[in-house]
Order: sequence, then structure tokens, then C-alpha cells
Amino acid sequence: MVYYIASTTAPVNIATLKYWGKRDKALNLPTNSSISVTLSQDDLRTLTSAATGPELRQDKLWLNGKEESLASERTQQCLKELRTLRKQLEDEDSSLPKFSMWGLHIVSQNNFPTAAGLASSAAGFAALVVAIARLYQLPQSMSELSEIARQGSGSACRSLFGGYVAWEMGKEADGSDSKAVEISPMEHWPQLKAAILVVNASKKDTSSTSGMQLTVKTSELFQERVKTVVPQRFIHMKEAIENKNWSRFSELTMKDSNSFHATCLDSYPPIFYMNDTSKKIVRLCHAINDFYGTYVVAYTFDAGPNAVLYYLQENEAKLFAFIYKLFDKVPGWETKFSEQDLQKFLEVYENDVSGKLQFEIDDELQKGVSRVILTQVGPGPLSTRESLIDENTGFPK
Amino acid sequence: MVYYIASTTAPVNIATLKYWGKRDKALNLPTNSSISVTLSQDDLRTLTSAATGPELRQDKLWLNGKEESLASERTQQCLKELRTLRKQLEDEDSSLPKFSMWGLHIVSQNNFPTAAGLASSAAGFAALVVAIARLYQLPQSMSELSEIARQGSGSACRSLFGGYVAWEMGKEADGSDSKAVEISPMEHWPQLKAAILVVNASKKDTSSTSGMQLTVKTSELFQERVKTVVPQRFIHMKEAIENKNWSRFSELTMKDSNSFHATCLDSYPPIFYMNDTSKKIVRLCHAINDFYGTYVVAYTFDAGPNAVLYYLQENEAKLFAFIYKLFDKVPGWETKFSEQDLQKFLEVYENDVSGKLQFEIDDELQKGVSRVILTQVGPGPLSTRESLIDENTGFPK
Repeated sequence: MVYYIASTTAPVNIATLKYWGKRDKALNLPTNSSISVTLSQDDLRTLTSAATGPELRQDKLWLNGKEESLASERTQQCLKELRTLRKQLEDEDSSLPKFSMWGLHIVSQNNFPTAAGLASSAAGFAALVVAIARLYQLPQSMSELSEIARQGSGSACRSLFGGYVAWEMGKEADGSDSKAVEISPMEHWPQLKAAILVVNASKKDTSSTSGMQLTVKTSELFQERVKTVVPQRFIHMKEAIENKNWSRFSELTMKDSNSFHATCLDSYPPIFYMNDTSKKIVRLCHAINDFYGTYVVAYTFDAGPNAVLYYLQENEAKLFAFIYKLFDKVPGWETKFSEQDLQKFLEVYENDVSGKLQFEIDDELQKGVSRVILTQVGPGPLSTRESLIDENTGFPK
Repeated sequence: MVYYIASTTAPVNIATLKYWGKRDKALNLPTNSSISVTLSQDDLRTLTSAATGPELRQDKLWLNGKEESLASERTQQCLKELRTLRKQLEDEDSSLPKFSMWGLHIVSQNNFPTAAGLASSAAGFAALVVAIARLYQLPQSMSELSEIARQGSGSACRSLFGGYVAWEMGKEADGSDSKAVEISPMEHWPQLKAAILVVNASKKDTSSTSGMQLTVKTSELFQERVKTVVPQRFIHMKEAIENKNWSRFSELTMKDSNSFHATCLDSYPPIFYMNDTSKKIVRLCHAINDFYGTYVVAYTFDAGPNAVLYYLQENEAKLFAFIYKLFDKVPGWETKFSEQDLQKFLEVYENDVSGKLQFEIDDELQKGVSRVILTQVGPGPLSTRESLIDENTGFPK
């Protein structure tokens, strides 16, 4: 039996200028442009293999070891568009095998626990689209493929690039100009790192799809965000990235996270994603920046309680003097640091911080946090020889 | 020794359309008009006695049994304006005793624990202004006096009326048209009741004065609230009160509470007044309304985590089936209900609610609440024969 197989990894991205609101639900067209940082795949990535062959009659999907349905409209739309592009190639060159007529087996695995509540759909749809595009040997650019990934999950389009990425909302009704573009590659500003504090959530939040529909429909402050606040912030944040202006970047990132959560609270009924632990982390970040008299850390929160803390490599010891001191009992530090390294952060705390502290360290805070994930800005999807599909059977290994 | 003494009580008011933002800090002129319900003084009131006499050289103040400073600019401004009005009377009629030349002793007491975190400054300044105005036998109307109380504490102006009260923001730079007016007296819609859930707060929030300054200065969504959202809501809420349209009134009340807190969250650094308990109460209220398929309860939150739940007398059993069931261990129910009454609420829960419940009752919730205060719409300031000042000494009894 002959199976054609291609594999790729795709990264998670965390928006610094938030996507919240669709102007077209079917096409996943957003009410505003957004900006994100792509995170390193050493720490957070989806690996996806796609296989096809003349014997495969049906499309099938396995996610993290379990067979899952491919029936969702969003997934179907992605597969249809990719097949259409492949069909065009086959029509132009009759020597090409008829991949567009055959079934697809897709096998996907994350290297991080789904339970962490990190939005994995962006990496998932990005990997799915790129793996199939490579299998099909499509000539389309990453920006063009991002229009397909966008239809799977809006923010997935941003995971097609590494570094600093904009999703331009576009104007066309058919979505043909709503796509991701690179603002700057990771090499432009490689010093950006992230510490993700995974916050315990007692119950599932409103899904982001239904949450953003509710906000668009009911928040009376939302139009101001979309029409005035975000367009200006988009220009300023792009400039901040291009100029590696960390203070500007971090201030805009924090303000935009708060603005997004404010429109959630202004929805009816209101939507709450941040909990008391999230808020204490917000206060802590402002207290740390106040302590140093400069921007050392910038928080951002997606549609859930987890805090993503961005910082520059040069400020790591300053930041970790606080956050390792505060969250030393949660797992995750050992992935990047030796006991000796960690001890040094405590020494910075003892020597430089504790005597001058104007606020109280809350020992209870770390009970609200289950894990820290340490990572940094990273590249876009990467081809890999690692395959999740057995080349003899066309099924998961 | 001769002492002239007057005493008054003044009520607490809870805004249903929130005051948040000053356009003039010195004069306490607001960025938007607001609306409130005056609560019954049986449950929440300040009693203030004011005395003067030729022997009193100094102004002195006693609050809840302790001497306090009168040095704050806001208090000084109120005393100055009241003395000016008295002076005008004395200039017109030389037979009047020269109260405006003498010192004032002011003694004030709340009938509720200050620790409850209920904004007592509104009732406090309203009582101070009315007590002195009565002592001085000023001919000014309550609306005119409300301009003086406003300068002590913005929302105090609304405590000069009973029932349903609007604070019209006005346009004049000197604040002469920024005053409280009655929308409807309590008799117009006497069925409105309130259950206040006093929520445990771990630490003092940002004061409302500095909080609102920060919001005006930094929130990019705030101008939309002030210029577009509130002016429309003001008209609609007045109409809802005039027409006793409970559904409309409760929806607008909840939306405006959320809108106010959204602009706090959009401030930089963000301000959080509601905590996880507050949010669970919000969700509970929506769940109760969903359960009955109609508006049974409306929440509103001031600059703190306490929930004020408005409801109509006719829906008391429906609401209390839930909230007595959930908060039965906190004190306060016994102030209005016998054991037998309370048992009936549990019966309503068992018979009508528990079997059909679509959501889970959270037994942990009442740990976040320390007390319930049961009250209702009430009258404005009331003259009283009760006096806190000894007529022989001019000092507190």
C-alpha cells in the first residue's frame, strides 16, 4: 500500500492586542485587527501528521491518542478549501496523484496538558492546515494559508508565522483580505520571554465563540473599543514592536487585556474570565513595575484566568525575584532552571527586594496557581521528520 | 447657658444609574447624571444633631462616639456655605441671633456597623447639611441644599430626597445647576425592596474619589459611557420608574452596574471592586431570573464587593427561596422574619425549585458573605426629637 505522509509542528500564539468579536460568524471575520506573539514550540506546540492514499476512503482524525469527529463545519470548511487548491494543481498537471479524491488521516498531538486550559485550537488548526498543505504540495504562501486556518479558528491564522504577527481584519465580505502577516520575525526581537501562570479554575468559562457573540450583541462599550480604541492601538503596538520599544509594548499589552475583559464585563449577562487570583497577579505586576520604577513585566489574559507574563531576558532576575519567591511551590521552574539558578532568584529577593518592599507578599496566592510554563518568542510552523502515522498502515503509530 | 439644637436623620441611597467621574473635583461636579433609590431609615440611617450658642468658639464633630477632625476641605466648604446662607437671613432681620458668628457642635451616629463597608458618607453629609440648615432655619429647598451636600460627598445630594431620586449633572461651571431632584416619591412605588449581601473583603479597595479620577484620566471606554450610554439610560430609567416598569428598571440597573465596573477594569492600572463572591452572586441572579423566566431580582454593586439586590415585594418568596436557602447561616434574616416565615422560604425551595433546577447550588458561597441587610425604599431626611447633644452642656450626651 502507498501512503503519502507529511508532518508539521505549529505554535501557540498569545495575543497582545486581543481578537474579540466576529463581524461574520461563518467566515470567522473579526470586528478588529489583532496582534500576537508566537511562543516557542519547545514548550508549547501541536505536532500533526496528515496522510493520504488511494485506499483511504474516509477522512479521520485522532487527537492526543483518541479518535475524534471531523464533522464540525469549521473543520469541513478547512478540508474543502485545501482540497479545492489541490484539485487546481491536479487539473493543471495530470501527472500528479489524485490526492483531492482520496481520504485523509490526520493525527495530532500536543506537548502540553490540555487540562492547562491553554487555547490549543490555534496551534491545532494551524498544524492541520499546514500539514495538509505540505502533503498536497500547495504553492500558497503562509498568509494565503492563514485565510484557511482562520476559518477553522480565528486566532489560528496568527500561528502560521513566528515572531510578531498581525491579523489584519480586512474589509471584503468574502474574507479574502482577512489574513495573518508577519510584523517582525523572532530574530528581530528575540529577547522577549513569557512566564505563563496556569490559574486554577473552578468551572468552565463561557466559550470564546459564544462569549464574543454576546459581547458584540450586548455591550454598549464594545463599538468604542472596536472603532476607536483598537485601531489606534494597532498602529502603536506595531510601531512598538518594530522599534523594540518595550515600555510602550508592555503598557499597550496590559491596557488591551483590560479593555477586552472590560467589554466582557459590559456584556449582558456579564462574562467573567479573570478570577480573584488573576486580579492579584495583575496587582502584583503593577507593584513589581512600581517597585523597579520601570516596566519589568506585562500581563495579558485570554478568555480564562491564566496569566501570561511577558518580560525581557535582561529583566528575568528582577522579575523572578518576585514570582519565584511567590510561586516557588508550583511545578514548572525545573524545566529551565537548576536548583542553583532558582536559589539565585531568592537571593535577589532577599538582597534587593525584601527590605524595600512597599506592599505585602501574599503567601496564599500560590494556592490559586497550578503550574508555571516558561517559554519565549518562537518560530512559525516547522516541518519535521517525526511522524505520528505508520507508513505501512496509514493509521496512528 | 443657651444652646440651640436641631436634629435630623438622613438615609443611605444606592445608585441604580451610577455616579462615577468628576468633571470638577473641587465642586464635586459629575461627568454624568445618576439615579438612586433611597433606602429605609429603619435599617440604615445617620442621626445628626447640630448645636450652636454664643459660648461655642470652635466647630467640633463627634462621629459614632469619637471626636473627629472637621478640617477636610469638603466639610469646611459645606459649613461655609451654610453659614453664608444664615448670614443673609441675619442681615435681613437683625432680631435673629447671630448663629453665623458662633461655633457649631455636630454629633452624628449611624444605626449600622461602619465595618459593613456600606457607603455611609452620603447619609453622613446629607444629615450634616440638613441638621445645620434646620438649626439655622434656612428657607432653601431640599434641591438647593443638595448643592451644598454634593460638595461634601457627591452622592450625598441624592440622600436629601426619599423614594426615587435623580442627580442632574447640570452644565454650569459653578455647579449651580448640579443638584438632586425627586423623580417619584416612595409612595409612587412602595413595593421596591432590597436585600444587601455584605461580602467579605480581604483588603480596602481604592477609594472611590481616587478611583473615579483614575478612570476619567485613563479609561479609553469611559467617554463612551459618559457621552452616549448613560444619557440614554438616564431617560429610560426615569421612564421605567415613572411607569413602575420593573423589568425595564431591573435590566437597566444590572447593565449600568456592569458598565461602571467595566470602566473601572479599563482604567490603568485597573480597579477591581467586585470579587469572586460578587461575581457568583451576579451569576446567581441571572440564574434565578432565568429559572422563573422573568425578572425577579436586580443586582447592583457600588465601589466595593457588596451586592445590593432589588426586588418587588410580590416576588419576595420566589427570590428568598433561593437566597435564604443559599445564605441561611449569615445573620440578618431574623430582623424581619420569624423562624416560621423563614421555614416557608425553604418550603418554596423544596417544592417549587429544587427538582427543576438547571444549575448547581454552591454551598461554599455563603462563606464569602458576612451579613444580610433587609430593607426597602424609604423617605428622605426626617426631623426627630431624639437628640445626641446635651442641651445643658452643648456636648455629646
